[in-house]
Amino acid sequence: MPSELPKRVTLLGSTGSIGTQALDVIRSQPGRFTLTALSAQSNAELLVAQAREFRPAAVVIGDESKYAQVRAALAGQPETEVLAGAEALTEVAGRPATDVVLTAMMGYAGLLPTVAAIRAGKDIALANKETLVVAGQLITDLVREYGVRLLPVDSEHSAIFQCLVGEEQNPVEKIILTASGGPFRGRNRAQLAQVTRAQALKHPNWDMGAKITIDSASLMNKGLEVMEAKWLFGLGNDQIDVVVHPQSIVHSLVQFEDGSLKAQLGLPDMKLPIQYALGYPQRLANSFPRFSFLNYPQLTFEPADTDTFRNLALAFEAMRRGGNAPCVLNAANEIAVAAFLRDEIGFLEMSDVVETSLARVSYLATPSLNDYVLTDQETRRVAADLIGARA
Amino acid sequence: MPSELPKRVTLLGSTGSIGTQALDVIRSQPGRFTLTALSAQSNAELLVAQAREFRPAAVVIGDESKYAQVRAALAGQPETEVLAGAEALTEVAGRPATDVVLTAMMGYAGLLPTVAAIRAGKDIALANKETLVVAGQLITDLVREYGVRLLPVDSEHSAIFQCLVGEEQNPVEKIILTASGGPFRGRNRAQLAQVTRAQALKHPNWDMGAKITIDSASLMNKGLEVMEAKWLFGLGNDQIDVVVHPQSIVHSLVQFEDGSLKAQLGLPDMKLPIQYALGYPQRLANSFPRFSFLNYPQLTFEPADTDTFRNLALAFEAMRRGGNAPCVLNAANEIAVAAFLRDEIGFLEMSDVVETSLARVSYLATPSLNDYVLTDQETRRVAADLIGARA
Repeated sequence: MPSELPKRVTLLGSTGSIGTQALDVIRSQPGRFTLTALSAQSNAELLVAQAREFRPAAVVIGDESKYAQVRAALAGQPETEVLAGAEALTEVAGRPATDVVLTAMMGYAGLLPTVAAIRAGKDIALANKETLVVAGQLITDLVREYGVRLLPVDSEHSAIFQCLVGEEQNPVEKIILTASGGPFRGRNRAQLAQVTRAQALKHPNWDMGAKITIDSASLMNKGLEVMEAKWLFGLGNDQIDVVVHPQSIVHSLVQFEDGSLKAQLGLPDMKLPIQYALGYPQRLANSFPRFSFLNYPQLTFEPADTDTFRNLALAFEAMRRGGNAPCVLNAANEIAVAAFLRDEIGFLEMSDVVETSLARVSYLATPSLNDYVLTDQETRRVAADLIGARA
Repeated sequence: MPSELPKRVTLLGSTGSIGTQALDVIRSQPGRFTLTALSAQSNAELLVAQAREFRPAAVVIGDESKYAQVRAALAGQPETEVLAGAEALTEVAGRPATDVVLTAMMGYAGLLPTVAAIRAGKDIALANKETLVVAGQLITDLVREYGVRLLPVDSEHSAIFQCLVGEEQNPVEKIILTASGGPFRGRNRAQLAQVTRAQALKHPNWDMGAKITIDSASLMNKGLEVMEAKWLFGLGNDQIDVVVHPQSIVHSLVQFEDGSLKAQLGLPDMKLPIQYALGYPQRLANSFPRFSFLNYPQLTFEPADTDTFRNLALAFEAMRRGGNAPCVLNAANEIAVAAFLRDEIGFLEMSDVVETSLARVSYLATPSLNDYVLTDQETRRVAADLIGARA
């Protein structure tokens, strides 16, 4: 039993893959954490069950049509306030009585609640990479201004973060993000044109939500992670490499100015980086399965095939352009992935939608927060039109 | 050009592999380091050349018969005092006007000068692993008492040390020392019985002195490193694993109590850990060749074959016995390796000499410094007799 007071956690996106695993972590560390608030977009049943177990001060259901249902289900639990909608989410994210806000909601929707939490002086356990992809400069400026910590939850960024602990005085020469390569590693464009939704949803190593699984198959996820890393670690565009590592054991590497590399390794299990972010700077003892070289006698590494998986090249291009280009890339990709998941477009067409959206949406070099909101809206229209025109 | 004062370095064993590479490092970082003293056992010519280049306050030649030669050669350099013999070495190691003592001399001879340097309050850049193997408890007690730092130079231990930076509050679950496996990896005992001195001296990855190269081929070097790690990092006997990694890129790993592993990687080049120990806590920018996964698409790992390479099992056994057993193991091995290098015994007989010496020399559970000196002397007699009786 820990001697210090439990850490108070606000968990945004509690019913998704990261959210439920975060609750597994919290459950497995009795006395370490309490939950201040939980939120979910639409899974009212699970949100209610979680609220009954963890008894937070507030729950937010994003989908306002489910407010009455959640409220009725929690009527016998007066200590838990029930709210609904995007504005309530942002308001709850900025409430004072919490220590760390875990942003595990999906996509662009994470931006405004994250901004609210930073402005409230809360540490952010960042599982919503889109926040940094879309508005990295703005978020990192806010993080500095409010003196909060940005603790990555993505396994690759957690790896880099872990490798940088204690190295504050030593500049980074570059980082190497590892990528599993996804289920279609080694395939050519002709083969990719034929792949189905079901095939794309079968990730070889990681068990994740649908959106990120498709992004992993298309390498867009790695492209988003490149931008996330740029902002998290204050890197130049040429300081980030990607290497495909199909076993997903080496989660990423840092190279310092003396040429030394540090890597973080482990079995592919999101619970470890989630726990690290929540427990930081302390590593909490646990009984997660341990890695053994006996089970992984070979770790292999190969260059990413950006001719075939064009999303990764598009992401690097958007990063180099800067301004609102990453916001466009992200919004177009969210629309394209949703369309792919509805069988409206093929696997390769996702890149086409992103590329054409990048060309069509007006470029802004130094967007404000409101410009990002408008860019996101405009891009979603453009991308939807592109998909509609094809159908 | 660095702004702080140069760090003052005493380099013991300046003409060996580590010593000359340390001077390469110092040469490549102008203004960072000055040399307070240099020592060599017998290579008077190189010692003189180094003294002329670096103009230290003192040089010590271990072999007293070469004193006159060194003194005459440096007659025109009055700022450099010339001394000779083991006692002078220990005296110079304990002189006040230095910041860090790099102990790169060979074998057991490193013990007394290292003790003197610690007692003088100097940080130790430890390249002489035998010091900790023989007298780990005594040395670590002294290090604590005098509040000095023990900075490992061995690449494996430097790797662990680098991975532990910033993790002071997080207990280590275990460490994994990597071993190249040496030139005879995969061979059986019948094959090992036939190997020659010349074959044993060809290490696949590392360019090192003769003694350590033989120890690498026999896995005794890894056994000594296991004990070195135990003391450096305060580990229990069951917290140290060895894995064979023929590419020598992953220099070693740490596993924490949350199951996360950190590794340090790089090309096999001793200049990096030497520079890290001398520059710690700062990593100094350099132009050493960089590692690339393009050149190492596969990193492989396999268990160590301790049935064939019995030295590693003997070392674990000596560590578990404790007391003066590691001192016996080390002394017997020094005699055995010297005999193998003189073609007096075969490769497999080195383990026999070590094993029989361990059985014959009286066990002491809590030896004093003087007991170590006596154990070392007794073991050398016993081992030499064993070899003589065979010849």
